[in-house]
This record gives sequence, structure tokens and C-alpha cells, in this order.
Amino acid sequence: MQSTMQSTSLPKFLRQKDEFSSQYTRTCRLDVEKRQSVLYVLGTTLKASLNRSAPPKTKYFSVKCTDNVQYIISPLLQTTSYLSPVPLMDNSVLLITMKEASVHENDNKLSVWYYDADKTVLDKAVLHLTGVDISLDVDADRDGFVEKNNPNKNTWKWGPHGHGAILLVNCDAESLYKKRPDHERNIKRRMSSDVKDMSPMVLRTKGPAKLPEGYKLVLHICQSDGEKIRVFISSVDHYPLVLYSASLSKEIPYLGNDEIKFYVEGVKFPDKDFDGLIHINLSLLEPISEGIPETPIFTDAVVFRVAPWIMTPNTLRPVEVFVCSTKDNYKFLKGMKSLVESSGYKLKICHEYMNRGDRWMQDELEFGYIDSPHHGFPVVLDSPRDQQLDDFPYDVLLGPDFGYVTREPKRKDVSSLDSFGNLEVSPPVTVNGKHYPLGRIIIGVAFPTASKGRNMTKMVQDFLWAQTVQEPIALFSDWLEVGHVDEFMSFVPAKDRKGFRLLLASPDAGYKLFKNLQNDGHGDAKLFEDIPDEPTITVNEILADKILQDENNYSQSCIDWNRDVLKRELGLDDEDIIDLPVLFKLVEDGGQYRALAYYPDMVNMIVLGENLGIPKPFGPKVNGVCALEQEMVSLMGNLGLTCTFIDDFTSYHKLMGEVHCGSNVRRSPFDFKWWNMEM
Amino acid sequence: MQSTMQSTSLPKFLRQKDEFSSQYTRTCRLDVEKRQSVLYVLGTTLKASLNRSAPPKTKYFSVKCTDNVQYIISPLLQTTSYLSPVPLMDNSVLLITMKEASVHENDNKLSVWYYDADKTVLDKAVLHLTGVDISLDVDADRDGFVEKNNPNKNTWKWGPHGHGAILLVNCDAESLYKKRPDHERNIKRRMSSDVKDMSPMVLRTKGPAKLPEGYKLVLHICQSDGEKIRVFISSVDHYPLVLYSASLSKEIPYLGNDEIKFYVEGVKFPDKDFDGLIHINLSLLEPISEGIPETPIFTDAVVFRVAPWIMTPNTLRPVEVFVCSTKDNYKFLKGMKSLVESSGYKLKICHEYMNRGDRWMQDELEFGYIDSPHHGFPVVLDSPRDQQLDDFPYDVLLGPDFGYVTREPKRKDVSSLDSFGNLEVSPPVTVNGKHYPLGRIIIGVAFPTASKGRNMTKMVQDFLWAQTVQEPIALFSDWLEVGHVDEFMSFVPAKDRKGFRLLLASPDAGYKLFKNLQNDGHGDAKLFEDIPDEPTITVNEILADKILQDENNYSQSCIDWNRDVLKRELGLDDEDIIDLPVLFKLVEDGGQYRALAYYPDMVNMIVLGENLGIPKPFGPKVNGVCALEQEMVSLMGNLGLTCTFIDDFTSYHKLMGEVHCGSNVRRSPFDFKWWNMEM
Repeated sequence: MQSTMQSTSLPKFLRQKDEFSSQYTRTCRLDVEKRQSVLYVLGTTLKASLNRSAPPKTKYFSVKCTDNVQYIISPLLQTTSYLSPVPLMDNSVLLITMKEASVHENDNKLSVWYYDADKTVLDKAVLHLTGVDISLDVDADRDGFVEKNNPNKNTWKWGPHGHGAILLVNCDAESLYKKRPDHERNIKRRMSSDVKDMSPMVLRTKGPAKLPEGYKLVLHICQSDGEKIRVFISSVDHYPLVLYSASLSKEIPYLGNDEIKFYVEGVKFPDKDFDGLIHINLSLLEPISEGIPETPIFTDAVVFRVAPWIMTPNTLRPVEVFVCSTKDNYKFLKGMKSLVESSGYKLKICHEYMNRGDRWMQDELEFGYIDSPHHGFPVVLDSPRDQQLDDFPYDVLLGPDFGYVTREPKRKDVSSLDSFGNLEVSPPVTVNGKHYPLGRIIIGVAFPTASKGRNMTKMVQDFLWAQTVQEPIALFSDWLEVGHVDEFMSFVPAKDRKGFRLLLASPDAGYKLFKNLQNDGHGDAKLFEDIPDEPTITVNEILADKILQDENNYSQSCIDWNRDVLKRELGLDDEDIIDLPVLFKLVEDGGQYRALAYYPDMVNMIVLGENLGIPKPFGPKVNGVCALEQEMVSLMGNLGLTCTFIDDFTSYHKLMGEVHCGSNVRRSPFDFKWWNMEM
Repeated sequence: MQSTMQSTSLPKFLRQKDEFSSQYTRTCRLDVEKRQSVLYVLGTTLKASLNRSAPPKTKYFSVKCTDNVQYIISPLLQTTSYLSPVPLMDNSVLLITMKEASVHENDNKLSVWYYDADKTVLDKAVLHLTGVDISLDVDADRDGFVEKNNPNKNTWKWGPHGHGAILLVNCDAESLYKKRPDHERNIKRRMSSDVKDMSPMVLRTKGPAKLPEGYKLVLHICQSDGEKIRVFISSVDHYPLVLYSASLSKEIPYLGNDEIKFYVEGVKFPDKDFDGLIHINLSLLEPISEGIPETPIFTDAVVFRVAPWIMTPNTLRPVEVFVCSTKDNYKFLKGMKSLVESSGYKLKICHEYMNRGDRWMQDELEFGYIDSPHHGFPVVLDSPRDQQLDDFPYDVLLGPDFGYVTREPKRKDVSSLDSFGNLEVSPPVTVNGKHYPLGRIIIGVAFPTASKGRNMTKMVQDFLWAQTVQEPIALFSDWLEVGHVDEFMSFVPAKDRKGFRLLLASPDAGYKLFKNLQNDGHGDAKLFEDIPDEPTITVNEILADKILQDENNYSQSCIDWNRDVLKRELGLDDEDIIDLPVLFKLVEDGGQYRALAYYPDMVNMIVLGENLGIPKPFGPKVNGVCALEQEMVSLMGNLGLTCTFIDDFTSYHKLMGEVHCGSNVRRSPFDFKWWNMEM
């Protein structure tokens, strides 16, 4: 062996200094008593105190090693070679690395010779070295492919120059037989069709055909991550489970110069108690002796962030429109069908056997999606409202590449504010320089000052806040009898300014319009004229009703309060907001007065690209034209939008909802990728 | 009134533009139908659409106001005065502010006159204005005094240039009668002696003697903050409770030109589910009409951070030393008393009626403190260990200005690793440029790769991590039979380098010392010579025991693993670490082999300034001097530290502990204030 030993000259040390500054330095013992075999992992540094193991009376030492081994002595001595004896100092340390993985076990060697004051050999410590290359890899650069040993693979950074891999909650259902979300099904293995929903992870190794006796590779996660992910290993024809909540570590075979593929699935969305980050570790364990636990000599780690659930604002392209068919809504359905189909989208009807008379398609669910560089799919958030439409999201929507998630608070904690007409999302905005490229979620709550009041349940609020990419805004919606933000606001696309307008119901705009009518001699024009059995009322009568005026002043002040919050939180100017002429009235409910739309609430519309489906207001007519419709057509026409008025009076408005409440739209995801956000 | 109206010229508008760009803009309605009274809060801006309320046919408008009122019109018109009619545009907006608080209700006025195309008056809208100044104040600049309306009072920022007020958990016990921590006692009111433990908060108001009819000031917090704080109001001779978990909002009297003082106490330390930040809001509510909830027209908010519990490293000045007196530890007590008193500190003895034979003073509790700009005091963290010493922290330590906190996991989740010999803290360090001016907490756990293993209970770990100012480091201590980090590491002060040295037990250093003894002809020197009934063993016998050598190689590799972690996490060089000659042996415990000190474990010492109390090792003697003691004296002497060897052999070492396990030191807080950390 002696002939293969080489001297290492000073210039070479210095040139290679960087290779020794690895963060992964492992303290290693030198032992003169017995031959030592050391397993070395490429990219790490072994550090041995020369003095600690030196025999008594040692004054000098020398070092020899094989070609593939490199070392430096710290502190550096004024010598070009350690082949001949050099003085041993108290703090002399040997730093060892290897250039390449070994072909055979113990095929490299480093020896330290100790000498007394006369340079007579006292003893030697010999390290037999086996080098292996080990890398646990993920798609840390987010290009859809698993690169090799990305230096940033174990940290997560937001933004276009960020890094860190991404995980989907495997919440769709590959199979419709005994359907359930995949992450709740058959946890012991996965079928190959499910692999695309999971994130690949690769263990790459290089070195001798097998590890030295007793060494083990172990994949492991912490307890809390065990509740959030599952790891499967790629086998011949299926994917057995290797890590989950009840099995946090698993020995993994070492295959020499080969790789092993894993697939990782999320089982839990980010939430109050989970920031979305999980870590998977691979440790190389060194045996000590019988009955003594192995110690890890190397740990590689990767990080994943579980993809958040993302909502889609009105400005995104519609894909499907959903409505319910009921005994009494034929006219509404006909209007919707005509609007949706002429707009070029698909109308999907939920029939009565499924909806059981519950027509509030908006309230039972919210469409969203999850996305990663390798895959993405729509995910429905099922509301805790749970009325007769309750089964629709699970029974009809959940399926292959269509995910499902819900939060189930206690029954007593659920109120009307938990219906998802009270959950909306703004288009992308920039607020005081801060970008929200996916917009901001908007929910309605009670005032914090109200001693009692209805609220969106904390469990759903926590979920929404925890997604982080669409930071929510809480509005005051408890002033409304039904209590949903979609009763007073909506967003429509616009080609100018910020790309959209905020529409707000405005009693003041309503009164202004009615006063103008009166002033122009149309005070006798009637509302509700074309509705059978509905009493009519004239413009003059409305304007003469001082109580109604007070109720609308109150409603306006509640909307104005929300207007101020929206301007501040979305960075809007008054020019970004359009006031729609809508009146409210107050109704008593358990000693509290709350607001309802006086005539069909035009802001509660469906937005399909440039086509708007608006509740037909049945307002006062001037020359046979409804003045409210005319005003809407004029306001929306300025934005290039087309209004279709849909008669929802009997089947929705009288039941305290309108077009938006009775429909739902699944939209295309954002082009913008959520991981490119700057947080 | 007309005579007091003034015109406002353009230059004045521009000069005062800033006053109108307040973040707090409130949309306000103009009403031509009836006289409006508006309550205005100084520092905010009222914003009214001129067009929204304009009568039909309006083409021009003009504005007049009293001296104390200021306004601008947006968009700005090419005019120097709005006293004469100017054209009304669709987007004309009026921005109104007041310069000073009112003396009487409605003592100011602004009127908007509307004109038709012929400049004939159509109607006017009149706002009667009452200005009030309202400010909820705290010590946001952290100087110990409540300043007025700090612009940063509602956000919290770390660092010397940071801001945001600080709250203490009121966890001491003012009264020893039926003693319990104050925040758990008598929640309806507080005595004046308790006020110093609470953070002052002041409501300052200025304006007319009373608010207009129906307006209210309400102090309110959210549900989750209600579980973390209590707010008391200063009354004549006591402090009634106003806000807590069961009362989240409270009407507060408005006193005109006066102030009301509040005191806020924390009831919960930062923890896994609580980041330490709480908000208190003050809202001014506007009445609408009977049966309709008031709407807030102004909200002021302040933020507090609950002070974290902070540990004190060995480098801080000792105040008191605690030990237990037992039937059999007279010799130990005598040694400790002599050391502590000669070092100039107080020794406090916990007698047997209290300790009930449990001598492990280190393990039952950890001393720490909480601090704020106005006050601070020591706080004991009671370990979930709960053996016979269990009552000591509560019964003896808790008292006036001595706080108490504990975490009580389920009995079955508690292991030996929950004793606080397994909870230490480093001196201040800087790691890769990141400063830890309060050091880092150090705990011992099982390896994540171990399928079974003992751990510090998650509940205590969560608490420690949540304090955030001493970010914890987890070491591997499960290799030890007792499982405490203080069995292999300690910190001592040093005048050079980083101000301290890390001491590590080192079997290699032990073997090296013994080999040198053998080599120098002292192989027959005996360990344990002066201990009655203890068998002796010679240096030669130790060196000949190959099994013992293997066990120590293992122990060394476990310590080396921890050494690598400590170097990385504390930013240490090898020169910052001193290896102490300590041997271990393995004992079997339920099929697992774990380590115990072979002779008294010298690293398990008490550090009192420059005086160290070290377990007397009873090592081999050379010329009558113990070689182990001599080595310690030499190593510590280099740092200017004095060693006192304390005989703990029979009463501690044989029971698997040493000096450090059997004592505890309360130390002075850091001079560095935790809120000055850069996070």
C-alpha cells in the first residue's frame, strides 16, 4: 500500500481550502490501539484532533494517504509536506475529505505516525476509508424535474428567485368506486395513476456495491410532520407506504450506484397549527456495538411546502357554471342557460334528487385549486353550512383530479355567515407597494365591538388565513339579515386602471336615481309592475317614506364603512369603485334590525368574462324602459361589459337571495404561480 | 354664522395636503334632506361625494365653513375659492378635517350649496361638526412612560430602533395569604400593590364636556386575546376588571378634557399557539337609531408583546444558590456552604420537610426572569418532573416579585429528560453573523432516527421554542442513563475570545491522561482511594479493560456528535472548547445500554463567577495529588478560574448525579434588554 501514498503540497492545500470549509464537519476519532474503518460521505469533512489520541511523549507526527484522500492540517505549518515528521501542537487538527466515491470497501487509507523527541516512531493511527456519495433530491428549483443535490433543497424561499420543493394535498379521488379523497384511502400503498398527484423525491447513491457491515440508511420525519405527509417508495408495480404518522422512520436499501424513487403526498392543508412546511431527512447510521443505538454520521434533508388552497376572482376565465334545478325556478334556469351558453361556457345543473330543494349553489361551496410545478387541479372547499345541498361537493365534484377539502366546526358554531356567499376574493392588487398577485380573500364578520353578533366560524377563518397567499380582509356583513358580503359588493373586469372595478350597492345612488326620476316628472312610475301578485309602489311613494330613508341611510353607512376598509386594504381609489343604485329595508329578527334588498339586488350578479348576469330589478319604467336597468347598462357599458337581466324575483329574491347566491362558477387558475409571490 | 365662514385659498390647500392624506379616511354622507350632525375625530379625514347627494339638475356647488374646519376638493379645480359656485363634476369629492377639538357640541359647521345651470340655489347640505381628540396610549417607545399618541403604537418591531409596548405575565404572588399567582387570583379587581406588575395604558380625550347623545367609547379585544390578558381600570381606591375572556368589550366613560388610566396584565406566556402579541382597541360608536347596532366611526389600537421567559447562563452574576439538606449529605452541604459564602453569595437550604429526601435541586426547576421597561422580576419554571421536591417552587419561591410558571403534560409523557438538568442556556453568541445576545437554550432529546427513545416532553419544548429570544438547540442526550445535557457539558466565563468556554466531558482526554500516567510509571495509582467501602481500581486496570475502552469510544462519539452540533449552532471554534478528562461506563436498562459517569463527572459543576464547585473525582494520585484534579486546576487556571473540589461521591455520584444536579443558582438578569434583539 505504501507505494500508493502521496505527499500533499501546501499550494494544493490552499487551492482546495474551500472543499474543507463544508458546513458538514464531523468530529472523528484517531485511535492508535486498533485499526479503524471510517465511512466518509462526499461533501463532508472529517475533523480529527491529532493531539487527543497521540501516545505519551509524542513530539512529532507525519501523515500519509492514498490518492483519493485529501487533507489539511490546522493550524497550517511552514512546511510543504507532512510525509516527514513535523512538530505536534496542542491544537493540531486534521481535516480530511475524499474526492470520489469508493469502488470497494476500505479502498482508501490515511495514516498518522507519531514520533518522540528523537523522531523515533511511537505508534500510528490508521484510518481505512470508504467514500460514498449520498443525496436525497427533490424539485427544489421548481421546474418540474428532480435535479441532483440542489444546495438549497433544505430551505424554502418565496419568490421568482426562491427555492424549495412543493407538495400537493392528495385530496382528489382517483377511483370513483367507494369514492373518497385519495389521502384518506388505503394508506398502505398507492396505485400508479395516483403518482402524478404526488411529489417525486429521489435517493441517489454512489459507492461500493454495499455499505460496510452494520451501516444503515434511514429515512425519517418528525412526529408533527408525520401527521401532514405520507411517503411512498417506487416498487415494481405499486407504491408501498414507507413513512406516515405511525411509522416515522424506515430503513432504506442502499443500492450502490443507483437511485430509488419516492413519492410524497400531503394529507393536511396549511392551517392555524401548520405553516405548510415539512422536512424529510435521510440519515446514515453508524453501528457501534451490540445493544448500543447507532449514531447518525450524516444527515441530508429536504423541505417541502404544502401548496395552499387558492380562490379564483371574477376576473379569471370561467370554465363551468353550476346552478340548481328546483320545482319553481324554470324561468331563472332558462335565463341562466341562455346567458351561459351564449357566453360560450358550460352550464351544469344540479338536479333536485341531489339538491333536495336547496338552491343556494353559491353558499354550499367555494371553487379553488392547488398547484405545483409538476401538477395541479381544482379543489372544492365545502362550507360547514351543510343544508340539503351538503352532499353535492363530495358526491358530484370530488373525482379524479378534482379535490375536496372541508372544515367541520361544531353545529352550534355555524351561522348564516358561514355560507360562502360570504367568502369572495378580489382580483390581483397592489397596496402601498405590496403586491397581491392572487388578490385577497374577503369575508364578512360581526363588528368586534358588538357584544353579540354572528361570525364566520373560527375554524374556517383559520383555514383561510393559513393559506397566506391571498391574505384575507374581514368586512362587516352582520348588518345584513342574510349576512353575506356578496349582498353589497362584487368585482367586474375592466380594461383600464387596475383591471377591474369594485361594484358596491349604494342606497344613496338609488335615492339619487329616484329623485331624478321624480324631478323629471316620473314620480308615478311603478316598481314591480310586471310581477304577478306583487304589490307595486311608485317612485313618489318610496321617496315619501321617511322610515325607509332612515333605513337606507343606515345601510349606506354600513356599506361606507366597508368601502373605507376595502379602499385601504385593496389600495383602491374612488375611481376604482362604482356605486350601483340598490335600496335596502330593515327587518326585525330576534330584537335586532337587519337589512335585506328592497328590490332585486343588482350587485349580486354572476360575472362571465364581459357578460354579466344581473338580477332583473323590476324598477320604475320610463318610456317602457326600466330606469334601474338603464342605469346599470350605462355604468357597465362604460367598461365594455354587457348586462343580461335575469328574472330571479319569485324563486330567489323573495327567498332572500339573487343570481350570485344561486350560482357558482369554476374558473381557470391564475397564470401566476403562487410560489413566485414575494412574502 | 355666515360671518365666521372663511374662504380657503389654493396655496393653503397644498400646504396642508398632508393633513388630508391620513390613513384614517371615513366616508361621510351629505344630506340635503335634513341637518346632519357629525362627530369628527382629530387626525382623521371625512370624505364626502359631492355628487352622490346633489339634487337633480345640479351643475354648480359652493362650500363654506367655520374657522376650525379645513377642506379640499378633489380633483383640484382651477380656482382659489369655493365660496362662489364652481362646476360640479361626477367625481367631485370633499375632504374635511378640523384643526382642534371642539369646546361645545356642534360648534363648527360646513355647508355645501348646490346650484342649477343658472347658478340659482337648488338646495344645501349642512354638516354640524363636533371635533374630539381621542388617543389610547401605551409605552410604545419603551422608556417606562406612556407617551401621547405614538404613531407606532399599534405595531410591534424588535430592535433598538423598534417600538411597541410590553406586557408582563402577572405570575408573581403579591400576597402570601392563600398564595397563588396573581393572574390566577381574584379576577374582579386588583390591589394597588399589584399595579407595578402591570402595563399602564391611558385613554386621553379632548373635546366638549360630553359626547353628543348616543355616541359611546368602547374598549374591546378579540376572543383569542381575551384568554391572554386582563385589563383593569384605575378607580378611586382599587382597580376593577374591565376586559377579560368573558367580557371582550366594555363601554368606557368619556371625560372631556381628561384621561383615564388602565392597567394591563398578561395571563399567558407565549406558547405554540400564541406568538405573544395582543391588541387592544378603542372604538367610538355612532348611534343610528333604536334597534340598530351602532357603527364604529373611529378605532384606535395599541399592541403589546407579552415578555418572554428568559434563562440565565453561567456567565451571569449569581444571586442565590439553592441546595437540599438530606439525612446523608452533610459533607456535601459543608463543601457547598464554604464555596458559596467564600464567593460572596447567599446559600439557601431547602430542608427535608420540604424536599422529602429529593436532593436534585437542578432537576425540579429552572430559574429565569421576565422584564419590561417598567418592571421585571425572577420567574421559576417548574419542571413536570414532579418528584418529592415538587412543592418547593410554588410553596417557597413564588411570592411578591417572584413569579411562577409551569407546563403540566400527562404523567405518561414525562421522562427523565424532562428534568431541568437537561435544560441549559449558552452565554451570548454570534453565529454566522446572527446575534444571540441572550444566548441559546440547550436541551437534550432522543435521536430522530431512534425508533424508540426518551424525549423532553413536547409541551415544555413548545414553551421554550415559543419564547423566541433564546432559540433552542436540541442535543442528543438519550445516550446517557439519566439523559441530561449537564452530564457532558457546561459553560465557564473567560476573559478572552467569546467571553466563555464550552467544557465537554471527554473520554479520549481521560484515556490520554491515564496513558500518560502509565507511561510516567504511575500505572499502579488507584482511583477511589479515600472513599470508605468503595473498591479501588488502578490506572493499569482501567487501561487494560477493553470493554470499558469500547464503551468510552461510544460515549466519545456521542459527545463528538453533540460537539459538532454545538460548534455549528453556537458558532464555536475548537479553541472555544475545553475537553475534560471524564470516563463513562455503560449500564443496561431494559435492553438498552446507556452511559453513566465512571468517576465523579467533573463537567457537572456549579459556576459562581470565577469560582467553580467541581465534583471531587477521587482520581489516581501522583505524589499525593489527584491527577484529575491537577488537570482541572491547570485547564481552568489558564482561564483565571479557581477550582473547589466538593465531595459528592456517596450522596450524589452514587445516586447518578453530581454537584450541578444537586444545586441551582438564581442569577442576575442580562443587562441587555430582550426587546432590543434584532429578529
